Amino acid sequence: MIRHLLSGADPDLATATQILDTAAEMATVAGREVKKLPALRGRTVVNLFYEDSTRTRISFEAAAKRLSADVINFSAKGSSVTKGESLKDTALTLQAMGADAVVVRHPASGAPHRLANWVDGSVVNAGDGTHEHPTQALLDAYTMRSRLGRLAGLHVAIVGDVLHSRVARSNVLLLSTLGAKVTLVGPPTLIPMDISAALAPGTAVSYDLDAVLPDVDVVMMLRVQRERMNDSYFPSAREYSRRFGLDGPRMRRLPEHAIVMHPGPMNRGMEITPEVADSPRSTIVEQVANGVSVRMAVLYLLLGGNNL
Amino acid sequence: MIRHLLSGADPDLATATQILDTAAEMATVAGREVKKLPALRGRTVVNLFYEDSTRTRISFEAAAKRLSADVINFSAKGSSVTKGESLKDTALTLQAMGADAVVVRHPASGAPHRLANWVDGSVVNAGDGTHEHPTQALLDAYTMRSRLGRLAGLHVAIVGDVLHSRVARSNVLLLSTLGAKVTLVGPPTLIPMDISAALAPGTAVSYDLDAVLPDVDVVMMLRVQRERMNDSYFPSAREYSRRFGLDGPRMRRLPEHAIVMHPGPMNRGMEITPEVADSPRSTIVEQVANGVSVRMAVLYLLLGGNNL
Amino acid sequence: MIRHLLSGADPDLATATQILDTAAEMATVAGREVKKLPALRGRTVVNLFYEDSTRTRISFEAAAKRLSADVINFSAKGSSVTKGESLKDTALTLQAMGADAVVVRHPASGAPHRLANWVDGSVVNAGDGTHEHPTQALLDAYTMRSRLGRLAGLHVAIVGDVLHSRVARSNVLLLSTLGAKVTLVGPPTLIPMDISAALAPGTAVSYDLDAVLPDVDVVMMLRVQRERMNDSYFPSAREYSRRFGLDGPRMRRLPEHAIVMHPGPMNRGMEITPEVADSPRSTIVEQVANGVSVRMAVLYLLLGGNNL
Repeated sequence: MIRHLLSGADPDLATATQILDTAAEMATVAGREVKKLPALRGRTVVNLFYEDSTRTRISFEAAAKRLSADVINFSAKGSSVTKGESLKDTALTLQAMGADAVVVRHPASGAPHRLANWVDGSVVNAGDGTHEHPTQALLDAYTMRSRLGRLAGLHVAIVGDVLHSRVARSNVLLLSTLGAKVTLVGPPTLIPMDISAALAPGTAVSYDLDAVLPDVDVVMMLRVQRERMNDSYFPSAREYSRRFGLDGPRMRRLPEHAIVMHPGPMNRGMEITPEVADSPRSTIVEQVANGVSVRMAVLYLLLGGNNL
Repeated sequence: MIRHLLSGADPDLATATQILDTAAEMATVAGREVKKLPALRGRTVVNLFYEDSTRTRISFEAAAKRLSADVINFSAKGSSVTKGESLKDTALTLQAMGADAVVVRHPASGAPHRLANWVDGSVVNAGDGTHEHPTQALLDAYTMRSRLGRLAGLHVAIVGDVLHSRVARSNVLLLSTLGAKVTLVGPPTLIPMDISAALAPGTAVSYDLDAVLPDVDVVMMLRVQRERMNDSYFPSAREYSRRFGLDGPRMRRLPEHAIVMHPGPMNRGMEITPEVADSPRSTIVEQVANGVSVRMAVLYLLLGGNNL
Repeated sequence: MIRHLLSGADPDLATATQILDTAAEMATVAGREVKKLPALRGRTVVNLFYEDSTRTRISFEAAAKRLSADVINFSAKGSSVTKGESLKDTALTLQAMGADAVVVRHPASGAPHRLANWVDGSVVNAGDGTHEHPTQALLDAYTMRSRLGRLAGLHVAIVGDVLHSRVARSNVLLLSTLGAKVTLVGPPTLIPMDISAALAPGTAVSYDLDAVLPDVDVVMMLRVQRERMNDSYFPSAREYSRRFGLDGPRMRRLPEHAIVMHPGPMNRGMEITPEVADSPRSTIVEQVANGVSVRMAVLYLLLGGNNL
């Protein structure tokens, strides 16, 4: 097993499959009367968040607690970090306090990788800048496999601001390992010329969502970051929504079996309409539930838990 | 048993009595060496707070932990909520993550009721706008019963800004079910003409605190919201305190057995003087302790806990 | 055993030794597979922080959780405190909710002492203004003893802004009890004339770091509070660093066995250079680890835990 989870490229096919299989076992716990496993009793998981992300933090917190780990939340706002302590000193401090795993969200791309050099425990990247968010890719893969029965050979369209999306990046890397084909869809300003080659060979690019839809098994809508919409390379909201938003008529261009994914939180009416978000094709709520199972699996496997 | 606790009107007499009786059992736990019960092991309680209320949040957190539940605190500030996620999507997210109960504090009256439509788990209203705060009413009733031996036939004066008080509203509704008589006391601008009829038949209104005191078993002083004191319908602080504040001389107009209640936090010197707050008639600290027992009972009964 | 830990002067020699010995036992837990002890199961520890201090809060939280206590974090920002509730009413509220110990950080010197008058449980001072921080002194003493084998007869230089340092104050008091000799070093404006006599007889003062170094077993560098550096009595950063910062050449003036301590977080390049901070003489990371053990010992002994 790997020691850290920093990138969607970290797990090879065997490891990725092991994580997804373990997550499936973890999911059965949700049906038991006592939804706790003793596997990580006495282990400490620190959620080190330099950016607010309640949704991701809660998912990791729920996962760790369901495995009986102790969880310590460290919001870096107003902490000694803001008194100028370096990331390295923070890392050494957390390790000295007995953190077995550090789950880190950081605005700077690459911060979790640097952290991993300094600590003996495990580091899980919970999102670093515009770079990666590997547990999101794993939960997306889990969701595809559970809905469609396989990953190899699937065709997945990822739609939106690919340039700034850590979700897209991690998904492309992981899906490539898992044998799925990805097409990136969005306005040319948000899909750099060289991105597909740089990420994974065989990744396709399209600027025409309508043309792509009839051919995919999965369409994954990226969240529009409202704060980016004032940037010059971003189309107007109306233009974006018209060309790349998923509404009912567009959804009906998909093959009958295809599913619609979104990492949340959604901008309803912008990249996705309520009709689509709430349709039976939508896996958005399942993705959240699967996120807890996948994070349980990742923490369990990284920390070498016992007594599953 | 009811599935949600949204209003002081939700529990009928049998259910309210069951909650108070269960709270009395819970209170005995505080005397044990190990003050924990395994009743909610493996259950997850989410404190979803859209307003700061450390006091209420801690009370629910202590209650849930004493029942061995896992507690996740979700302060909606700086969360995806502020990125524009709807209450419904937040609700579905929490449910997907495995929340068995959501304890919600929200500035908008009615928000917990909407939430309850969207989730399979239980919703507890921990205060919604100027609307309701039913666990406060239950702990108040518990305190009255434990000090005075009964609820039926008691005469309770609720004094202050009734118009904006969720505490008053929930108390009127619950006390009516429990057979107590309520008189609302305050300046006319803060007690709408139709409020008593709208809430519970038989609720009396008075603008003269001194006239009411000799006849009551309980006087409940409401907290003055300082932020409301600049409103035009609010008397000046000095005028308010002179006419509706409870000081020593006024307290001595009460029957000998009568008690003084306050939901806290107090503005000492405004609606209540230190002499009164710290007198043996005052139940203010007991109310806090009872709050934990009552919230244990509510969570236990809503979640159908086992192994009490 | 003492009931509260408010000052470095609270524990007499026997009690201080008991705390350090218990901390050594606690430290062995870190090597076990399950790093939890059941000693404080069912007890509730409240972290009542009126100032941000993630580092100290996390250390106490990790300590309490490793002893199986329930931990409730109460950040006083945005709480009813800011609605004007008094410290006393907050204390009574926490006690009524069942807090067995209150760990308090407060900007006002003496606040924990006042708190201790109002509650039946134990109060641990986690830093009050410029006054005291006794668990820091205990973990420092633990670190000295574990590195140098003894405390009696050691010579400890404490270097920096002694005037405003709760770390220095608590260390002087505790080290005096433990039989070590302290020399305070810093600019005259930051070491009041009467401080040594006021704190502990025999405490020396020097304004010349280079002259002191060859004679000490321990040099403890205090953190420079950047917010104080604009004060008129504070030297310029460059001047301070030149005269009182610890760099490589200065470190080499120490006896071979001497150690370098810092309470963290460091201002690397200001009071200490990276070469010194990362040298084998530095105990900075050990201090953090020892902090958890010492706080486990303090909570265990104050709360009379069982089943160690």
